[in-house]
Amino acid sequence: MPLESYKGKALDVLSQIGAEIGDIIEIEKEKVRVKGILMPSYSKDDDIVVVKMDNGYNVGVSVENASVKLVEKRGLGKPLTGKGDNRKGEVKIISTGGTIVSKVEYETGAVRPALTTEEIVQFLPEINEIAKVSSEILFSILSENMTPENWVKIAESVKKAFDEGSLGVIVAHGTDTMAYTASALAFSFKGLQGPVVLVGSQRSSDRPSSDSPINLLSSVILAKSAPFGEVVVNMHGESSDTYTLAHRGVKVRKMHTSRRDAFQSINDRPLAKVFWREREVKLLRSDFFPKREESVLDSKFDNRVFLLKYYPGMDPSIVEYLVEEKDVRGIIIEGTGLGHTSTQFLEEFRKASREGAFLGMTSQCLFGRVNMNVYTTGRLLQQAGVVPLEDMLPEVALVKLMWVLAHEDDVDKVRSLMLTNMAGEINYRHSVDFYPRWNYE
Amino acid sequence: MPLESYKGKALDVLSQIGAEIGDIIEIEKEKVRVKGILMPSYSKDDDIVVVKMDNGYNVGVSVENASVKLVEKRGLGKPLTGKGDNRKGEVKIISTGGTIVSKVEYETGAVRPALTTEEIVQFLPEINEIAKVSSEILFSILSENMTPENWVKIAESVKKAFDEGSLGVIVAHGTDTMAYTASALAFSFKGLQGPVVLVGSQRSSDRPSSDSPINLLSSVILAKSAPFGEVVVNMHGESSDTYTLAHRGVKVRKMHTSRRDAFQSINDRPLAKVFWREREVKLLRSDFFPKREESVLDSKFDNRVFLLKYYPGMDPSIVEYLVEEKDVRGIIIEGTGLGHTSTQFLEEFRKASREGAFLGMTSQCLFGRVNMNVYTTGRLLQQAGVVPLEDMLPEVALVKLMWVLAHEDDVDKVRSLMLTNMAGEINYRHSVDFYPRWNYE
Repeated sequence: MPLESYKGKALDVLSQIGAEIGDIIEIEKEKVRVKGILMPSYSKDDDIVVVKMDNGYNVGVSVENASVKLVEKRGLGKPLTGKGDNRKGEVKIISTGGTIVSKVEYETGAVRPALTTEEIVQFLPEINEIAKVSSEILFSILSENMTPENWVKIAESVKKAFDEGSLGVIVAHGTDTMAYTASALAFSFKGLQGPVVLVGSQRSSDRPSSDSPINLLSSVILAKSAPFGEVVVNMHGESSDTYTLAHRGVKVRKMHTSRRDAFQSINDRPLAKVFWREREVKLLRSDFFPKREESVLDSKFDNRVFLLKYYPGMDPSIVEYLVEEKDVRGIIIEGTGLGHTSTQFLEEFRKASREGAFLGMTSQCLFGRVNMNVYTTGRLLQQAGVVPLEDMLPEVALVKLMWVLAHEDDVDKVRSLMLTNMAGEINYRHSVDFYPRWNYE
Repeated sequence: MPLESYKGKALDVLSQIGAEIGDIIEIEKEKVRVKGILMPSYSKDDDIVVVKMDNGYNVGVSVENASVKLVEKRGLGKPLTGKGDNRKGEVKIISTGGTIVSKVEYETGAVRPALTTEEIVQFLPEINEIAKVSSEILFSILSENMTPENWVKIAESVKKAFDEGSLGVIVAHGTDTMAYTASALAFSFKGLQGPVVLVGSQRSSDRPSSDSPINLLSSVILAKSAPFGEVVVNMHGESSDTYTLAHRGVKVRKMHTSRRDAFQSINDRPLAKVFWREREVKLLRSDFFPKREESVLDSKFDNRVFLLKYYPGMDPSIVEYLVEEKDVRGIIIEGTGLGHTSTQFLEEFRKASREGAFLGMTSQCLFGRVNMNVYTTGRLLQQAGVVPLEDMLPEVALVKLMWVLAHEDDVDKVRSLMLTNMAGEINYRHSVDFYPRWNYE
């Protein structure tokens, strides 16, 4: 791989020692020694050489007064597209936008997705040691702008990748709504030939603390070698860089605005830990959905739904507005505690039910399960037509309802499908270790 | 204290040994020995004696074929209301409803609040060793039915208790909306003479695993001896019974539908751990609001607000409905990630701002802080009038907005007050240990 991204002094020094992107080099300067993989430059200064160290971080070092040595020639830095390459298309990377493997153009300050196969391999040369990747830029959408229509297009693209022989598919996605998309993909497939791995990054690639390289590398490991046919979100598992966690797509939530381990399973155990250094997938459970012969796609969503988060003082007339004026066909209520709203809502809920709207109850606690048989309010709400939705996350129940309503008109069948465990979104058995620990000293 | 709640065989046996409620007794039966405080009966079977053991749990034991001994006469089981009792009114317990210290009437199955002073002391005789309590049944409302009007009444009752000389006030409250009420009380007082402790229970008093006794006992300890003048939620800190945590009222959230340690601080450290066995308050921080000479009450709420939780596919016209048709004066948006919605909302937000509605952004991640300067969408939303609300919880921001709108008409002043840290609801410095740990092996 040429040194095209380098210029000036850095290009001179690297050319002299015959180094190419992907080779291992060592830079020694003022008693500090940095050894690692030569990365493409993303600095606007022409004396900076970018090296990825063993810990997964990139560091930029000036070649001024430095001694630069070529340690190992690896010839990795180009896509293996040659004829007779039997690893062709093992892992497909579908790019939808977001900051993962985006390229910062320092001249303009703009971040643009950089997911041609060549750019990915430039960015992460080790990928070639793991799998043959191919890529597709499906679209370039900030994930807060993602819509149910986009979900369908992503699902179709995933289906195509498996049809073309991919072992696993990676969907690069912004983190804001990644969990919603993961649910949508999970409900869109009745059986998958391999893993569908959603991955994003919480810190963009130009920052030293970026989680992009580790998340992407471990996603390639997972997509190629995980034994399941499931949609997962694969992101940093803890604040250090030891492993990523592959969370079931319908049981995961972004729980922090900025931490790299923002994504966590709620009311469930993740499917696997991925140790990117050891290139190892450690399964945390055996009850995953196995790979199927065929990936069966059925992706349709009706977004005439609403997510209603209850709070004290809320005006119940919102229900009538939604059902009467906006033709909303179903409401997911994010109630309090075990699944409650004020009993002032009973009359509105009764009316909405009578008109055929589905009303499903989840909890704003997020952890735990709704139980509407313990207190009077829960029983009254059920009599008014509200259906307790077990331990489903509010967001997941909403996406599921969009899918169900696009497939069923009959309200009894809608209810029955909402309570059918389609993709592991309902977990009937909770373990104490699903609830995280807060420690204060 | 008489044995009035006992009848039949149990009454006979207890009368014979001269035991009264609050005394320490020992029951030996089939090689099992149970020692503890004699509690009022709540069994419908007349052979059951109820004993509270050292671990805080109540156990019911049949006196059939048992040997029952009086170990220690304590004379605790009656309220210390005698003249010349200088501990009069040290701690006031205001009952608003919920399952804490409720009394199950086995004949009807109904749960009714049982918070006359006498019943509290019957239920928890050790209270007399800690403080002189008095009590008031303010109302009996399931917390899901609590309204802003109720918040004002509770605040007035708290004010009255301090005016009458209480050192601290306990508000017994259902857990569903306890965190909302805690915020409302925190914003209602500019200065407090002592701790206001909200307490509830996740398991009702008739269940052996009830958290009622420990939560109530530790709340009495806290209300009497904590050095702060703040509103806190005091509930089980972990699944075992070692301690409770006193969470700042504006930084706490019910995070589990059923666990006893459901309440946890978000983006903050709790104020204190309370070790009920040792009767000790261990402060976890020193930056609490100190006690004031006077409790200054200013409790008004305008509930022409809405909490809008964004999701992909949401129809932006809801904003117009809220502002135009429902005269909503402010919307708290629960956006994605660092504080985003789809850019489809920009036009609606611009219109709403022009009409004087306040728009505030929080994150559905809950943990972390919104930052609307990182990505283009955030900047555009700010230009459209959306105000980033730091690390405030969505629910807390909503209650705060109700309070602010009841005090200010001018939208610039509303904005400025929303960004003023009134009761510790904004935490400018986060520590890594605010984020809990998920551990999977």
